[in-house]
Amino acid sequence: MSSVTLAEYLFTRLVKLGVHSLHGPTGLRWVGNANELNAGYAADGYARIKGVGALITTFGVGELSAINAIAGAFAERAAVVHIVGTPSRETQDQRQLVHHTFNDGEYRRFSQMASHVTVAQTRLWDLEPSPAQIDEVLQQCLRHSRPVYIEIPVDMVDQPVPVERLGRPLDISPLPPVSCSKVVLARILDRIYAAKRPVIVVDGESRPMGILGQLQRFITSTQWPFWTTAYGKGLLDETTSNCHGVYRGRFDSPEVQAYVNGADLVLYFGPHLSSTNTFSCSAIPRDELAIYISDTAVRIGQELFRDVPAQHLLVVSDNAHQRIPRLSSLTLSEVAGPSPITQDHLWRLLAGYLRPGDIVLGETGTAGYGVREMALPRHSRVFTPVTWLSIGYMLPASQGAALAQRELMMADEYQGIRNARTILFIGDGSFQMTAQELGTIIRLGLNVVVFVVNNDGYTIERCIHGRHQAYNDITRWRYLQAPQLFGGSEKVYTASARTWDELGGILTTDQLWNESGLRMVEIVCDREDAPSGPLVEYLQRQNSV
Amino acid sequence: MSSVTLAEYLFTRLVKLGVHSLHGPTGLRWVGNANELNAGYAADGYARIKGVGALITTFGVGELSAINAIAGAFAERAAVVHIVGTPSRETQDQRQLVHHTFNDGEYRRFSQMASHVTVAQTRLWDLEPSPAQIDEVLQQCLRHSRPVYIEIPVDMVDQPVPVERLGRPLDISPLPPVSCSKVVLARILDRIYAAKRPVIVVDGESRPMGILGQLQRFITSTQWPFWTTAYGKGLLDETTSNCHGVYRGRFDSPEVQAYVNGADLVLYFGPHLSSTNTFSCSAIPRDELAIYISDTAVRIGQELFRDVPAQHLLVVSDNAHQRIPRLSSLTLSEVAGPSPITQDHLWRLLAGYLRPGDIVLGETGTAGYGVREMALPRHSRVFTPVTWLSIGYMLPASQGAALAQRELMMADEYQGIRNARTILFIGDGSFQMTAQELGTIIRLGLNVVVFVVNNDGYTIERCIHGRHQAYNDITRWRYLQAPQLFGGSEKVYTASARTWDELGGILTTDQLWNESGLRMVEIVCDREDAPSGPLVEYLQRQNSV
Repeated sequence: MSSVTLAEYLFTRLVKLGVHSLHGPTGLRWVGNANELNAGYAADGYARIKGVGALITTFGVGELSAINAIAGAFAERAAVVHIVGTPSRETQDQRQLVHHTFNDGEYRRFSQMASHVTVAQTRLWDLEPSPAQIDEVLQQCLRHSRPVYIEIPVDMVDQPVPVERLGRPLDISPLPPVSCSKVVLARILDRIYAAKRPVIVVDGESRPMGILGQLQRFITSTQWPFWTTAYGKGLLDETTSNCHGVYRGRFDSPEVQAYVNGADLVLYFGPHLSSTNTFSCSAIPRDELAIYISDTAVRIGQELFRDVPAQHLLVVSDNAHQRIPRLSSLTLSEVAGPSPITQDHLWRLLAGYLRPGDIVLGETGTAGYGVREMALPRHSRVFTPVTWLSIGYMLPASQGAALAQRELMMADEYQGIRNARTILFIGDGSFQMTAQELGTIIRLGLNVVVFVVNNDGYTIERCIHGRHQAYNDITRWRYLQAPQLFGGSEKVYTASARTWDELGGILTTDQLWNESGLRMVEIVCDREDAPSGPLVEYLQRQNSV
Repeated sequence: MSSVTLAEYLFTRLVKLGVHSLHGPTGLRWVGNANELNAGYAADGYARIKGVGALITTFGVGELSAINAIAGAFAERAAVVHIVGTPSRETQDQRQLVHHTFNDGEYRRFSQMASHVTVAQTRLWDLEPSPAQIDEVLQQCLRHSRPVYIEIPVDMVDQPVPVERLGRPLDISPLPPVSCSKVVLARILDRIYAAKRPVIVVDGESRPMGILGQLQRFITSTQWPFWTTAYGKGLLDETTSNCHGVYRGRFDSPEVQAYVNGADLVLYFGPHLSSTNTFSCSAIPRDELAIYISDTAVRIGQELFRDVPAQHLLVVSDNAHQRIPRLSSLTLSEVAGPSPITQDHLWRLLAGYLRPGDIVLGETGTAGYGVREMALPRHSRVFTPVTWLSIGYMLPASQGAALAQRELMMADEYQGIRNARTILFIGDGSFQMTAQELGTIIRLGLNVVVFVVNNDGYTIERCIHGRHQAYNDITRWRYLQAPQLFGGSEKVYTASARTWDELGGILTTDQLWNESGLRMVEIVCDREDAPSGPLVEYLQRQNSV
């Protein structure tokens, strides 16, 4: 019986799942992020593009530094495998007082902490069951699209295990229909056939549910009007005439609000009803109109049917719909002039420069709201704050996403696209949190364009509370010097704009859009400038007090 | 009955304890660190100098980003008060799906995670008992010199509580002697009177035990030879002739090993016997020689006497001792020349430039070993890796320590010293982890000298494992550009040295030592250069394979 080491077993499983890069702080392995939190964020970004990602850290210090990223992956459903290297079994059995512990011989605290933010945990302590333990947690990781935790004592890494089991694929097939599935399907069909004015909402949990292909066909064949949430944005083709962008609830245009409120059926796929994702809950349809189809249940009005697999419910129908506003881009000529750049127009202008397959990231803050307004070309993906909202996440996530994108393009598994880019929009305050990950982007030569929206502090916090609070001010950095500090060549493209004309000059520069590697643009905005919507309303509320 | 708000109550308590600065990410309060982990590290550094420090974060994302710093404060006993702002009680009671949660209405996970790394936790949910709850956790924080966790829902912040209780001091008096105290004291005195060749070891937990003043008098009056551990270094006056530096176990000189092994009594104060702090356990004396005096017990040989307060045991005696080597510094003329800088001499050379009251920080890595070799002037303090060893800790900790130092000097509570500096020695890999905190040092105008020991990657990891592993390589930064990126003026002193002569030119520059604000020096060393001791041995072991 041929064998592999336990580590090879685990890594082979990961490679078969498409994980070709492991994130971790330098000092451990491979991608070499500047620190563990950033590595966790990067693994999350990678996972959202490729389906699953992995992170290696040391126990104690390393895993706790990364735990906020793991928690974010849990909240927003990224399948991240967190591998933790622990001391030898002998060291642990003897309760030795080694470094990275609390000097008390207790080694089990960290996994207990991890159990709050992962869907499965395992400790590879006995060799014989270890391969099955690995398989089980990886299956949980994929089924739930949430992080899992694997502890490997250092003396287990090179132990041999039989190779045969690797031939057996992981079991991640969907559950069979439960007994109530037919009833639920009939109820849904009744509502569909009766609907005079149906609408569809695509929310972000449609991705971990694995129904995007079916959903795309359903939407194409019904031609029903559909909206997404921020979380659902970019998951389906948004170039078709029945796509109307992100539904913004009471912040949307009167026509759109009237249309959605006048619907007689809202089919809501993959619901994730957090306040940020639903424009302070105002984008949640009334119970009597809605059918929510999630991975664990279908809810029709107030009735909840558990464990109905969504795959069995997506049926085809036809319908017509009225004219409803769609997202539009702006051109340079519409904004040109020496006046300051403002976010009411910025995002629709920038949308015109996107290209199929681009990955667009908008960090928590004004950028996170801004990207919701951008009309997307096909096969684009969007990262925008949904629920976890960990400021600092997006820069390392852009590294992970760009790496995943490059791997997919090179393997010709990216819709035939080979020239897509990763474009990060980030505020100055957020940039400071995890700026050093630019160094990893530079070292890996990833195709990333970074726009730093410099509004001199935490504008989103100024909007929500503390318009004039000193704690929303930050150290003023010279942002465009960052590529040089972090090891970039002198040819890295950088530019700064305060006016529409200056921005126009930059956006028409070929180097910005068509070079490879890192490019970086600073856009200077007023401290209290924000995209239209909730942030502007919050600001006005403070101004009126 | 006059009242204050609950927040004022808490902050007043903190101010009375000497906490004049609160650390937190910008976007929350006061010091304005670049991110929460850095804020946690800074609060820890502040606490080790002033006795207690505080950190404010938001719940969920903020607290989890900081939790590794809290864990480090737990492991190495820094009294950090972690204040966590949570959503209103109504929001939590209704299990609303707000941001920074897992979108499941569950708000209690984070405090459960915190319970593993703090000695006391409290949730200010009912107004009436809240002041007493605050007092209780602060008392625990001070008694244990370990972090505590306080949750404040946003709607509680401005609720009024009676002011009277603030007049009552916190109860942190030491426990009275337990019944066995006299027996233990008699046993210790017997051993002391019988001892022909006693030695003293001062370990780091002497600081949280609150016995440094007594211990200094004991050592001065006995004139017994004493060593410290890395953790205990800098806690007592090391300029006296009976101080022999850090005892390095089997890595120490033959004379020192012979002396310590030939002792007939080792009085070991504040033991913290982790592998890193004891030179892989080789600096732990034999049981039959040692009396360990810790905060929870006295151990004489194999016998353990619990709950004996150390304050009652420190008695005075007299004795003579032989000549044993002491730490010596090197002068420039002893190393001058065009040859490369090597760490076998570097640390003893730099020691000559220290000044009373300086705080010296050596990051995990070669610097952490290097500072153990430095002879210290009076009232200096040293931060060096002890047990938690979270790479990236020292730079933010230097911000916190420098701020605490400045506050103490300005309040004239720093031994009459007004011109002390904070001096950080840090490797290139570590610097990358938390580099942005230089921005906070710059903004606050703190008197910090940073030496970046640039050896092109993780030399300490190369020593321990993976001499040629790519995962010990890092992105090559242009380190001296950092002050400019992070907002420093163009006058910030920076310099780089590869040879002893170049270093000599820098060390004799007045600006380096006598300016205020940030100064930064890059010292380029060979990849495999390390201070003498364990690291060199590890390297040689790899070379011989």
